[in-house]
Amino acid sequence: MRLYETEIDSRLLLGTAQYPSPAILQDAITASGCQVVTVSLRRESAEGSGAGFWDLLRASGCQILPNTAGCHTVHEAVTTAQMARDLFNTPWIKLEVIGHGDTLQPDVFALVEAAQILTQDGFQVFPYTTEDLVVGEKLIEAGCQLLMPWGAPIGSGQGLRNRDGLRAMRAHFPDTPLIVDAGIGRPSDAAQAMELGMDAVLLNTAVAKAGDPVTMARAMAQAVIAGQQGHAADPMEPRDMAVPSTPTLGLAHLSELEHR
Amino acid sequence: MRLYETEIDSRLLLGTAQYPSPAILQDAITASGCQVVTVSLRRESAEGSGAGFWDLLRASGCQILPNTAGCHTVHEAVTTAQMARDLFNTPWIKLEVIGHGDTLQPDVFALVEAAQILTQDGFQVFPYTTEDLVVGEKLIEAGCQLLMPWGAPIGSGQGLRNRDGLRAMRAHFPDTPLIVDAGIGRPSDAAQAMELGMDAVLLNTAVAKAGDPVTMARAMAQAVIAGQQGHAADPMEPRDMAVPSTPTLGLAHLSELEHR
Amino acid sequence: MRLYETEIDSRLLLGTAQYPSPAILQDAITASGCQVVTVSLRRESAEGSGAGFWDLLRASGCQILPNTAGCHTVHEAVTTAQMARDLFNTPWIKLEVIGHGDTLQPDVFALVEAAQILTQDGFQVFPYTTEDLVVGEKLIEAGCQLLMPWGAPIGSGQGLRNRDGLRAMRAHFPDTPLIVDAGIGRPSDAAQAMELGMDAVLLNTAVAKAGDPVTMARAMAQAVIAGQQGHAADPMEPRDMAVPSTPTLGLAHLSELEHR
Amino acid sequence: MRLYETEIDSRLLLGTAQYPSPAILQDAITASGCQVVTVSLRRESAEGSGAGFWDLLRASGCQILPNTAGCHTVHEAVTTAQMARDLFNTPWIKLEVIGHGDTLQPDVFALVEAAQILTQDGFQVFPYTTEDLVVGEKLIEAGCQLLMPWGAPIGSGQGLRNRDGLRAMRAHFPDTPLIVDAGIGRPSDAAQAMELGMDAVLLNTAVAKAGDPVTMARAMAQAVIAGQQGHAADPMEPRDMAVPSTPTLGLAHLSELEHR
Repeated sequence: MRLYETEIDSRLLLGTAQYPSPAILQDAITASGCQVVTVSLRRESAEGSGAGFWDLLRASGCQILPNTAGCHTVHEAVTTAQMARDLFNTPWIKLEVIGHGDTLQPDVFALVEAAQILTQDGFQVFPYTTEDLVVGEKLIEAGCQLLMPWGAPIGSGQGLRNRDGLRAMRAHFPDTPLIVDAGIGRPSDAAQAMELGMDAVLLNTAVAKAGDPVTMARAMAQAVIAGQQGHAADPMEPRDMAVPSTPTLGLAHLSELEHR
Repeated sequence: MRLYETEIDSRLLLGTAQYPSPAILQDAITASGCQVVTVSLRRESAEGSGAGFWDLLRASGCQILPNTAGCHTVHEAVTTAQMARDLFNTPWIKLEVIGHGDTLQPDVFALVEAAQILTQDGFQVFPYTTEDLVVGEKLIEAGCQLLMPWGAPIGSGQGLRNRDGLRAMRAHFPDTPLIVDAGIGRPSDAAQAMELGMDAVLLNTAVAKAGDPVTMARAMAQAVIAGQQGHAADPMEPRDMAVPSTPTLGLAHLSELEHR
Repeated sequence: MRLYETEIDSRLLLGTAQYPSPAILQDAITASGCQVVTVSLRRESAEGSGAGFWDLLRASGCQILPNTAGCHTVHEAVTTAQMARDLFNTPWIKLEVIGHGDTLQPDVFALVEAAQILTQDGFQVFPYTTEDLVVGEKLIEAGCQLLMPWGAPIGSGQGLRNRDGLRAMRAHFPDTPLIVDAGIGRPSDAAQAMELGMDAVLLNTAVAKAGDPVTMARAMAQAVIAGQQGHAADPMEPRDMAVPSTPTLGLAHLSELEHR
Repeated sequence: MRLYETEIDSRLLLGTAQYPSPAILQDAITASGCQVVTVSLRRESAEGSGAGFWDLLRASGCQILPNTAGCHTVHEAVTTAQMARDLFNTPWIKLEVIGHGDTLQPDVFALVEAAQILTQDGFQVFPYTTEDLVVGEKLIEAGCQLLMPWGAPIGSGQGLRNRDGLRAMRAHFPDTPLIVDAGIGRPSDAAQAMELGMDAVLLNTAVAKAGDPVTMARAMAQAVIAGQQGHAADPMEPRDMAVPSTPTLGLAHLSELEHR
């Protein structure tokens, strides 16, 4: 999977917030096999989270994908992105412009505007968006080379709330990397996203808030591979009427045996 | 997982019917990592499927679980089971007594009766049943030490048609091995079964009829592990109202940074 | 709809338990337009519920369908049915034999046995059953002329838990009256049952435990009619790809207008 | 329900395209009891559809809600709206700006822009939109006094594709009339929309393309009322564990009876 100029093997991207401890975060990153982690600038800037957290990420060997989590305006998001670039020394930015406090849904208007500004400023933008096809087109026109549609509201763990919408998105953008971002709760949700032909899954809460985050990280990694391979293997179509999975060719033969 | 006296590690059991070729079946078994394969006596008895197929299964090193696929009466099922014991030299029998030709749903009355007869005759019965709790109790009274509820009609690939019913089954039989048998279509279906706390998944058509059965076998194996670990990791509860997955503790701090 | 020898117009049957007051029950019956009400013998026998309740039912003009709610064995159910016949002077009996205390699922074994006994004793049995096709066949063999499959556990309000199962039931018993009994929570659930081609819906808790039972009774009645007519009207098939609902024949014409 | 300055009783709005014949359209309008019908200017402008169709609508006594179906740009939509105002002599306009040909999803950017222009020009805009909360806010800022979120793509008959999204919309805009527009296939879909607290439902294809459009119109009308009343009646919450719908208070009493 090509994310701008970078080739990434792992199809699971991991968020770094809300873990019970730095050690557990570190182990979860390892267990997930992820090569990209998202970091909130705000978290990073928070007192006390600084040096150790940063060393931990560096030690992980992962690409850092800074995000603009918590930003509600174009100005906030752009400013945060610029600080992130200085701090993390990367053109990558996961662009979140939150339009609604409860559902954390993107403000698609501000998102497109911020994406334009940041792209022109040399950023490689990873936009957190909805399944709206027109918004997707605007983001691509704005210079985004990939899209990150939500599965469900951030932190909800509801899974894929609008599977048909994501399916339409895949059909409409066959060549653009699509990363489902937010809403994943269980491994089967992650597998479903990949079975829809998505390129990758980004998640955070489902791992960080599981009873055992490290085991969940490993489970998610396997689910993503399972879904990806399942999609590649060209699955059977569901059938409305059940058909035998065991051929009955031997029926005559068997009845012979029975009546011997 | 203990199936009667046998300890089995792999939580995926594989059927052996309908594969494009014996070689593909062999590779699918290997890719799946399964330790138990089901074999239809009727298939085995059919002309032309004999020696090579048998050698192939032997070479796989898997436990053979003969089944009574295609049997519609107690008499047919019992007779078939007895022939299977002679042929495969195992007390194990996957007991299918089909009650309805289109949906291949079990005849739960004949199933319980056949289970009683076979158990008394020394068989270790793996009953293909519905999610009916009372039928499950009768099967256990009849001597079955595990249950194999369907996910959906055999060969339908519809996934878990009645998730609440399976959930109730898990709650009602906390200590009985439960193996979802039939209906799985995609890796996410297999993961969901395990996330419900099921002990294992048995499938056939979804692998045999995939475009690439070997890749699908591998995908299913990983999905089963993902679901099992996901269940063990104590997943977050889905939340109706979205909550931030990134703490906003640094907000004040950031605005300080912004206004410097 | 013919229920044994009786022609019934209304496709909504109502339970009479759990209402806030007798007056509200009476108004709910009227609002529902139902012609059949079920009555628990146990409730009727309970001290204090007697005469007034009975007068109320009589005044409603509805056919009484006594039920064996709360019975867990064949003996209990048969005895209760016989008492009900004496008390209510009707051959009708809604046969419930509960197999599991939490889910209130039928004991399909005891159900069939009790149905045989009661039919031979001259009863007209309304069996509360699951969506199991084989059980349905046994009940018909036992003399039942209609079937009452559950939608979901009694009192759960979950709606139709296994829609495919109910659909298979309709396909398998095209000429037998099928009444969805239990599990309905909202008017749309009742409409869905009828859209599946069911003949009627029986419900109790959804009305009795609504904030305003009388309004809910009226809503359910309309939903049942809406679903029945919707089924009769031969609905469009859902389409995966959206198509315009407005013809664009006038497009050329319009662009002429625009450029005038 | 107040739609701008007009009080409307009926909660079902009907589209007028795709009917088998004008006579059937006329009968469907009557059967639906609707007080508002949408009319495509393009359809109206098409040769041969003119005078008779117009007379038919006039005779129906319904308010005409012209729509901009088939428009893909702000300019097209605004021009069409202006022609519609002249033709139908009404400030009402159902604003559709289609962003994607296959799914007929709104172009939310063009929609907001066109809504601003039209509102400033004195129109009363009925915007066909998605469930996006931020888009909804922009439309209200633009002067829209009601919103028409889609249920699913126009003409798909898929029902409510994103129920959680519609639920969030209702919660976020408690005082704005919300009319689900597009995607309804069956009466139960219409009832569900109303059970979510929506104010009304607009549909077309589900009636026009039913085998019997007039019966379906009547069914939809009843479903809308059923859903509305069901919502008003404060339905029970679904329960995970089943509870008896018949009190067992009389149990001791009954067993006394039994043992007499």
